Amino acid sequence: MEAWLQGIFADTPVLTVPWSIDYFSVIAGVLTGALFACDRKLDIIGTVVCGLITGYGGGVLRDTLMQGTGVYFTSHPDLIVNCILICAFVFYFRGIFKHLEATVFLADALSVGLFALAGASKAVAFEQGMVLSVIMGGITAVGGGAIRDICVGEVPGVFQRSNYYAVAGLGGAAVYVVLARFGCPLALAGIACVLAVVALRYWSVYFDWRTTSEADLTPRIARGLHRVGEVLSGLFLHGGDSERLQRHAGARIARGASRDDEARKGSSGGSDAANSDWPANMR
Amino acid sequence: MEAWLQGIFADTPVLTVPWSIDYFSVIAGVLTGALFACDRKLDIIGTVVCGLITGYGGGVLRDTLMQGTGVYFTSHPDLIVNCILICAFVFYFRGIFKHLEATVFLADALSVGLFALAGASKAVAFEQGMVLSVIMGGITAVGGGAIRDICVGEVPGVFQRSNYYAVAGLGGAAVYVVLARFGCPLALAGIACVLAVVALRYWSVYFDWRTTSEADLTPRIARGLHRVGEVLSGLFLHGGDSERLQRHAGARIARGASRDDEARKGSSGGSDAANSDWPANMR
Amino acid sequence: MEAWLQGIFADTPVLTVPWSIDYFSVIAGVLTGALFACDRKLDIIGTVVCGLITGYGGGVLRDTLMQGTGVYFTSHPDLIVNCILICAFVFYFRGIFKHLEATVFLADALSVGLFALAGASKAVAFEQGMVLSVIMGGITAVGGGAIRDICVGEVPGVFQRSNYYAVAGLGGAAVYVVLARFGCPLALAGIACVLAVVALRYWSVYFDWRTTSEADLTPRIARGLHRVGEVLSGLFLHGGDSERLQRHAGARIARGASRDDEARKGSSGGSDAANSDWPANMR
Repeated sequence: MEAWLQGIFADTPVLTVPWSIDYFSVIAGVLTGALFACDRKLDIIGTVVCGLITGYGGGVLRDTLMQGTGVYFTSHPDLIVNCILICAFVFYFRGIFKHLEATVFLADALSVGLFALAGASKAVAFEQGMVLSVIMGGITAVGGGAIRDICVGEVPGVFQRSNYYAVAGLGGAAVYVVLARFGCPLALAGIACVLAVVALRYWSVYFDWRTTSEADLTPRIARGLHRVGEVLSGLFLHGGDSERLQRHAGARIARGASRDDEARKGSSGGSDAANSDWPANMR
Repeated sequence: MEAWLQGIFADTPVLTVPWSIDYFSVIAGVLTGALFACDRKLDIIGTVVCGLITGYGGGVLRDTLMQGTGVYFTSHPDLIVNCILICAFVFYFRGIFKHLEATVFLADALSVGLFALAGASKAVAFEQGMVLSVIMGGITAVGGGAIRDICVGEVPGVFQRSNYYAVAGLGGAAVYVVLARFGCPLALAGIACVLAVVALRYWSVYFDWRTTSEADLTPRIARGLHRVGEVLSGLFLHGGDSERLQRHAGARIARGASRDDEARKGSSGGSDAANSDWPANMR
Repeated sequence: MEAWLQGIFADTPVLTVPWSIDYFSVIAGVLTGALFACDRKLDIIGTVVCGLITGYGGGVLRDTLMQGTGVYFTSHPDLIVNCILICAFVFYFRGIFKHLEATVFLADALSVGLFALAGASKAVAFEQGMVLSVIMGGITAVGGGAIRDICVGEVPGVFQRSNYYAVAGLGGAAVYVVLARFGCPLALAGIACVLAVVALRYWSVYFDWRTTSEADLTPRIARGLHRVGEVLSGLFLHGGDSERLQRHAGARIARGASRDDEARKGSSGGSDAANSDWPANMR
């Protein structure tokens, strides 16, 4: 197995994926970008540009941030020609893709995984450290789609409550970087990266895992801190007053039972704090 | 003529346009950008930034993609000062430009042509190959305007159904790259490039040539394929049944005559396919 | 004082601020970006990206324009980790920052000042000339916030009628560049830069100084030019006709008294010109 992989992936300290895999990921990205542009009623120029941005944008962003390491976009002109032809094909034959949603979803997930791998492996090859390598993987994976969304005046989908997408890209990049750091053969690490991204992407849609757009833990923490303070003050200040301590405990249990979780979440920690010293019989 | 051109344009393997031409194109771009900003009620900072983005954005994008070849923006500080002064002038005296629409249109067309030339000739000089050279010409020509549109939250005009703009820029760049490739003196190729852009831009407005935002050839192709199949099946399977073949042909002619072209375009290939085997007398 | 400053700031021809100051400015920028993202209901990915863009975007833009001088973002991975943790903290404990508006405002003003200093001093160190140094200071100061606004589909605040923000950044950068040019110790120039930005920012809010979004001086200038012409023509053409000259003068005074300033501003210079030769008694 290992020998077979070595046959496919060059056995160098730097992971070199076959050009066909790079080409596949760019083409899948270009395809989704062109379909996106068709949905927004852009013209042929807009479709080609959106396609190229989706396919190459993340890599260009990575190469701009990693100044002086070469730009992937300009190093493969033949791929650009193919991408433009694909965009034109999508523009004129969009009807074909209406019935290929599942295929496009799979191609997109694979492409995000391969982009994450391309970003992370280039950063690892240029010895950017683990943190930057994971970030470069994430940027390469979803940067193209984000720039495309910005170009048509929308808030990037990856910035909003949604199924895992950037999370999948970052997760895959992290898998690659950690495995590469601990001496795993780069070919295996790369396969694990792509599998992780595809699995995360499919699971997140299947189980409807979503990022959340609102999360304010302040009231919960405030209430928690208040209770710690309450218990501590009960122990130290009213150490001998066992009756009062029991009243406190009883009140807390009663309160926990009568209020449902949602309502408690909404109430501020402050009002909780103000109430908690009232005698239990007044509640 | 050739000698006179050699006097204007330096006789090197790299096309060196006089600085005054570069300056003119940037200033024309800055002017249109500043007028655009005034229309959107931006303040003086927004006007200056929009002007500079329109004038320099395409070049910065090209220089970012062609890593390590120098950035035009930072190499001519005196031009930047002039551009800022022009933006301020437009901001405070916008009333003057209300009556200069035709002049601004000409300046803009010339500037797009000169930008396309600047982008293509720089890419040719750095031996980026024909494909990238044309793309760099197009990016330099319309990239600034596109970035400006994105910056004020609009979908770039060049992405939408409109008169030729990006098409003109790409066409001019292609003219330059092809002529340069086939040994034409670079000065002549440059003039042809600018003329091509200006001509395409004016013609597209004069004849109202527009890019299209919707084009789905799938039904047409499906119908075409179906007919090919029909004819083939007629030939091979019902080879001897000449009456049936004639019925088919007659039905097709009658159908073509009774339906107007638009209605046929709208109908899906599928329904066509479903109908086409009915006996002719049932239609 | 000077000696004490030399202890803090390295005594080199290039201003080297302590890393803690750079870190503070990035972290303050990241903080404001993350709070901005929470207001727009972005998810954790969007919050982290908006934070990083606000903190690093201006610097990345500067480093892209100053090709080949290194990218600050990729040179301090430990700072990125801290920034991501801060964004996550803001995301989950946004409630805390509701009562810290004045502190956030101060941190933001300080951060803009320090960004302006970082941009201007890097450009000065790479000998980009005074014009570019001021522009780089301004770009570094407010570029991050502008890119963040663009990323969520809004017109950047600095492009619109608002309290001084870009003006403050540019002003501070200009103070630094001018002081550095005239041989002032770089440490002192840096402090003056930051103080200038913070002072301009606070004053602009305190005195409600705002940039204006509309300013068309054309009618005013046209009227002014017309009057100059009127006086000149009175002097040269009707030199001996003292009665007519006095009528002109009287009419102008009467007109000035009867019309209020606002109305005069609205009328075009043209109508003024048409009226001004009527006999005074017909008015």
